[in-house]
This record gives sequence, C-alpha cells and structure tokens, in this order.
Amino acid sequence: MDARVDSVTVNGRRYARPQQPVVVVCVDGCEPDYVTQAIQAGVAPYLERMVEKGASVVGDCVVPSFTNPNNVSIVTGVPPSVHGICGNYFYDVDSGREVMMNDPAWLRVPTLLAAFADSGAKVAAITAKDKLRTLLGHGLQGICFSAEKADKASVAECGIDGVLELVGKPVPSVYSADLSEFVFAAGVRLLETRPLDLMYLSTTDYVQHKCAPGTPEANAFYQMMDGYLARLDALGAVIGLTADHGMSAKTDAAGRPRVLYLQQVLDGLLGEGQARVILPITDPYVVHHGALGSYATVHLPSAEAIARARAAIEALPGIDVVLSREQAASRFELPPERIGDLVIVSDHLTVLGTSEHKHDLSGLTVPLRSHGGLSEQKVPLLFNRPLQGVPATRRLRNFDVFDLALNHVAVNR
Amino acid sequence: MDARVDSVTVNGRRYARPQQPVVVVCVDGCEPDYVTQAIQAGVAPYLERMVEKGASVVGDCVVPSFTNPNNVSIVTGVPPSVHGICGNYFYDVDSGREVMMNDPAWLRVPTLLAAFADSGAKVAAITAKDKLRTLLGHGLQGICFSAEKADKASVAECGIDGVLELVGKPVPSVYSADLSEFVFAAGVRLLETRPLDLMYLSTTDYVQHKCAPGTPEANAFYQMMDGYLARLDALGAVIGLTADHGMSAKTDAAGRPRVLYLQQVLDGLLGEGQARVILPITDPYVVHHGALGSYATVHLPSAEAIARARAAIEALPGIDVVLSREQAASRFELPPERIGDLVIVSDHLTVLGTSEHKHDLSGLTVPLRSHGGLSEQKVPLLFNRPLQGVPATRRLRNFDVFDLALNHVAVNR
Repeated sequence: MDARVDSVTVNGRRYARPQQPVVVVCVDGCEPDYVTQAIQAGVAPYLERMVEKGASVVGDCVVPSFTNPNNVSIVTGVPPSVHGICGNYFYDVDSGREVMMNDPAWLRVPTLLAAFADSGAKVAAITAKDKLRTLLGHGLQGICFSAEKADKASVAECGIDGVLELVGKPVPSVYSADLSEFVFAAGVRLLETRPLDLMYLSTTDYVQHKCAPGTPEANAFYQMMDGYLARLDALGAVIGLTADHGMSAKTDAAGRPRVLYLQQVLDGLLGEGQARVILPITDPYVVHHGALGSYATVHLPSAEAIARARAAIEALPGIDVVLSREQAASRFELPPERIGDLVIVSDHLTVLGTSEHKHDLSGLTVPLRSHGGLSEQKVPLLFNRPLQGVPATRRLRNFDVFDLALNHVAVNR
Repeated sequence: MDARVDSVTVNGRRYARPQQPVVVVCVDGCEPDYVTQAIQAGVAPYLERMVEKGASVVGDCVVPSFTNPNNVSIVTGVPPSVHGICGNYFYDVDSGREVMMNDPAWLRVPTLLAAFADSGAKVAAITAKDKLRTLLGHGLQGICFSAEKADKASVAECGIDGVLELVGKPVPSVYSADLSEFVFAAGVRLLETRPLDLMYLSTTDYVQHKCAPGTPEANAFYQMMDGYLARLDALGAVIGLTADHGMSAKTDAAGRPRVLYLQQVLDGLLGEGQARVILPITDPYVVHHGALGSYATVHLPSAEAIARARAAIEALPGIDVVLSREQAASRFELPPERIGDLVIVSDHLTVLGTSEHKHDLSGLTVPLRSHGGLSEQKVPLLFNRPLQGVPATRRLRNFDVFDLALNHVAVNR
C-alpha cells in the first residue's frame, strides 16, 4: 500500500494504514465457548498462545444475530441502520414482494475493503458461501471469491482464477466443515503467494449449527482452524478474529426443537393472512436450521392489529422481547422501513417459525442449534497482539474488529 | 398412604394422592442441553426412552436462578414471595446483619413433603449438600438426610440411620460427582427396601459448574444418572425430573471469567461503603464458582444514590437488566423486604462480584460456568409418563413439577 496514505476514512470511521498484513476472520456462529472448550481440550494450541500473548474480549453483534447483517456490519464498520442490510431476507413494502437481500442494490454504503483498495491497498476477501460474496465484494478492486464457487472464480469477476490449483483442494460441499476449511486454506495460500495489506475471511456455521462447544466434532473444527491461524501468524499477519453471531441449543432436553409458529398464531388471532410474518434467517441454504431462528418481524394491517398481535405474542411462553418498529430500529440500530410493525425475539431455547407445514425439518439430523436473538449477541474478539487505547467501559461490537485490528493493536513500527 | 386421603392441599395447591411411588428429581444446574447431548452421545438410553414414552417440556425456574430459592420453591410449590427464601444469603435489614438463609426460621410456609407426611404418606428427601437438608426437611415426619453427612444420619434427626451400610458406599467428597451419585444410589436403595409414596432427590452442580454439555465428563455424569433413573423406573416409580437452574459459560473465548465487581464500581461512584452489594449465591461451598453468579442486589442509602447507582450500572457492558426493588419483587415474585433497593442481572457470559480481593478464584481450575440470571432460567421438565390436561399456553415452572407428577401424569389406576 502506498506509504503516503496514512489512513482511510469510510462511513465516518478512520482506519490506519496496515503496517503489515492484517487478516480479519469472521467465524460464523462462534459462540465464545467453542474456543474456550477447544483450548480446554488441548486441541487449539495456537489459539491458547494467541489469547495469552494477544487480547481477548467479548463484543456484541448486531441483532438480528444473523450472518448477512453482521458480515456487512463488519466490512462497513456501521450498523444496519446505516448500511441497510438487516437480514438475509425482507419484505419490500414498496414492491409488495419478499426478497433476498444479498443483492448489493440493497447496500447503502461502501465497504472499508473497497475503500482501502481504492486507496491502493492490496485487498482480498474469501467467503464460504457464495451468497455473501457479492455483498462483501461490492465495489472491491481486489480479490473476492467464495469457497462454494471456487472453481468458477475468474479474474474478471473475482480478481483471481485457478483457485483450486492454488489451494490444492477440490470444491467442497456447501454443507460441510470443508467449506470453511477451504476459506482458511485459501487465505494462507494467498498470503504465501502475493503481497496483501488486508484480508477478510468469512466461514460458515455448518458445524456450529450441529455440534455443541466441546464436543468432538466442534473441537475438530477448531483444531483445523487453529492450524491455519498459526500459519497466518507465521506469515507475519496481524489477526483479528470475531463472529457474526453466537449459537444456542434451540431444543428441549429431549432434543426436540422448540418452535413458535407465529403465522399460525396470528392467523388464528386476526384471520388468515392478515399478518405477514417474515423470518429474516431465510436463505437458499436452510437444510441445517430449517429457516428457524430466534428473530422474526411482522407486518400488520392496522394499529389495532399491531396492539392485539403484540399482546398475544408477549403472552406466549418462549418469547424474550417484542418491540415496535420504532423501538426495534432504535435499540438494534435497524433501518425502520425494512422491518415490520413488530420485531419479535425468542428466548435462548426457542425459535420462531411461520407455519408448521412451511418448515422442512427433515434435514435436522441432530438437535437444532440456531441463533438470531439477543441470546446469541455475544461474540469473541480475539487478537494476536495486545490491544491499546481501548477503555474498559467501551461497548465493543463485532463491527469494531477492523478498527481494533488497524488502530488499536500494538504493532512494532 | 391412607387410601381414604384423596388429596393434600398445601400453600393453596391441591395434589392428588400418589397411586404408586412418585420420585421427583432436581438435577442441580441441569441446563437442558446436558440431557440432549448425553442422549446424542448415546450414553443415556433410559433418558432417551423416558422422553420418547413420557413427556419433555421446558419450564422457568425462579430468578435468582440459584439453588436454595428453587429447591424451596419446588418442595413448597410457590415462589419466593410466598415462601421467603430468595437466596442462599441475604442482608437482614432489621438486624443489620448479612445472614445465610438455610435456617428454616426464614421459611414462611410448610413444604408439600411435610404436608403429605402429615396426611399419612411415606416420604423421603435426600439432598447432596447438607445446607439444603434443614430447609427441605423442615417439619417432615419421614426420612431426610444429605449425602454429605450420610454417616451422621440418625433416626432422631433424619428418620433413618445406617445409611452408608444401606447404600454400600463411603461418604463422598463434597466437591465431587460422587456426592450426587450417592443421592441417586440412596434413593434406589430406599425404594428397594421400604414402601414409599413420595421421594425428593436433589443433587449438586459440581459437574455442571465445571463441564459443558456434551463433554466427556458431563456425559459421564448423565450416564451415571441414567442408570439410577432406569432402576427407579423398574421399581415402578413415576419420575418427574427438573432442575433448580440452568448453567452458562461465564468467560470470554479465552476462558477467563467475565466479572463486574459491583462494590468497586459503586464505591468509586458513591464513596467507600455507601452501597452494600449482596451476592445471594454466597454459601459455604464456593470453591467451584468463587461466589460469582449473574445476580446481585444492592442496598443504598438514599433515593438519589439509588438513581445514580442504577444509571451507572445500566451503562456497564455485561449487564442484562437492572430493576428497582418493586420491579424485581413483582417480575421475579420475590419478598421485597428481603432484597435490596436494586436487583442486577448480568448477561449470559458475565458474573457479578463485590470487590476483586474478596473473591478467591484459585479454585477455578477450569473456565467458570455459573448461573443466577435470566439466561439460566430455562430448565427441563421430564416425566416417564405422558402428561395430560396441561394447556400448551400454560407457563410451566420448575416448582410445578410435583403438580405435574401427581396431578397430570397418565397413571394406570
């Protein structure tokens, strides 16, 4: 990166020029206990060293604690009220259509990745699933590809080709731990083979949706990750690690999913189809969670319907909090015009559905674990260098990770 | 039990006469996922059968989600606002002393165990730790002893002697999984050797404070429990299983405890000793949690101090909710005169302390797991028979377990 550029300011935040490669890792669904348990089990020696010599704090992610709003917050440094992406999926009142939000048309601000690249930095972003690639890579003059479509990466579209040859691995299954491993492996190979100033690696929570912290399969995932992080460190990278959201068991003790089917409840209360329940977790990859998360938003036809729906939902066992559009927009920093009249958050063991017949739970081969609510808001913020100049009273967010990694790690200059 | 007695009414609730032995088990710190993960790991075949043939729901425990208030609620069928026990420990404003609440003098109502015994039922209660014995056994004409002091049990005090010989095990260490195993083993031996109508078994959360759900040590505990439950079932018992509270990791990803030292914060704000921070988790056995839980109450000298303290605490990262005495008494059903001016609940990864030097964390050989807050309010309610006559909209509490086991299980009559 041009040594004359001291810093880059984007979306109102100033980021110092990287003095050495800075790698930010977003580990999808990384409830802090996954790391704790892997260290306890002795399978994550690098992470143990990293937090001993570096820094470990806990931050808050964006609610809804879903993948897209949080990944976009991380790469823009701002909440959804500014960047516009408040779910994987929303109801566009203007067009009267339910639409996916992975089209950059919905993104209202540039990413810091694009801004750094525009300032001359060498930037790369690798995602597990392709759904995030277009959002994270929007406007980015650099490398940006997904593990899912690594074989399709072209210089024209992704700033790189021959990814499979570079990494030496085949295209992994979209439902596998391998999809995330490919992200790490590719990140290491990129850093080994070219000068990079800034790299963003974003995994998928396939394993976290299936396995509790400390179980053999979860530990195996973190053991895999540990090895790649050690290699990134050995290559001289400053590493900042966070998560898009945490993860909770969403079942009773028998392992059965605890689901509140809100559309059914509201159809019974207000009449068929009067309420429109939107589950912003919905995306094309629902096998591992059945589109069941702990956050929903509801569009309603009248003030009276809003009041009746609110009272009825608040009385349901399993509800954490019900907020009006205005309350939710203020508390969670969401764009009010892209959420419904009510926002509903369920408790740490409960998920929200529309109607029973609309959720295919046949893919749930193990007890449901999911996210979306306040109970999954706490995420790790780990750095392989000590932090400096961060007051203990500052409420840290996962989308402060680039600020912390670029402006607050102790670097030998 | 006398067949002419149809039911027993105590503390405003009616309980049907047991038709066969009814055993209620309170598994201390049993976050539902412990059971789920043990079943998943294949080490709990009886629990798997039990929930398949019987019933599994989730209920809310009492907040503060601590052992004493919840065990007392379970055996009285009422919340702390009625029975008076709102912690292990409290500040008695009348005497100006901080006192343990395990003296039955603080208990305001009879237990249902005592009421059944008074109606002619054969009743037994076995606790892990002796601290609970005097509360649970208050007024009970029957058997009541602790595993901790099993060797000291006498007919005069406990309604039984020769417990070690009966069980065939030595007195276990108070800090061990064996302490809970002794409770189960003794329960099985009692049921094998004498007619019993009603039995209450209450374990200790030594294992749950140390081990996450699904880890080998946790699974070993539930495997042990599974075997004894199968034997109780084979002896013809109706089994109802619940927990006093759940359990959460209370650390960052590095496994370091996240502690807010409230006395230090308030001393800095208001001057030394102006605020009195009470941690109702405090009891004589603090090695495994260092007296750190997610609930605290604070006594303050003036309305102005209350307002200032509240604002300061609400702004701290890691706080879930701060309530006034009246709000807390109403929301959590607590006796207002036995709590402070403020009630503070921290988030699922955070615990509350007084001052750093007052907490001995040297016993924390593994990352802290604890409870006390709203994040540990969800507990399992498992039965080895189907439930009937329980509306889906009813908010179930752990202290409904005797009602459910006696009034709502499908029994062959």
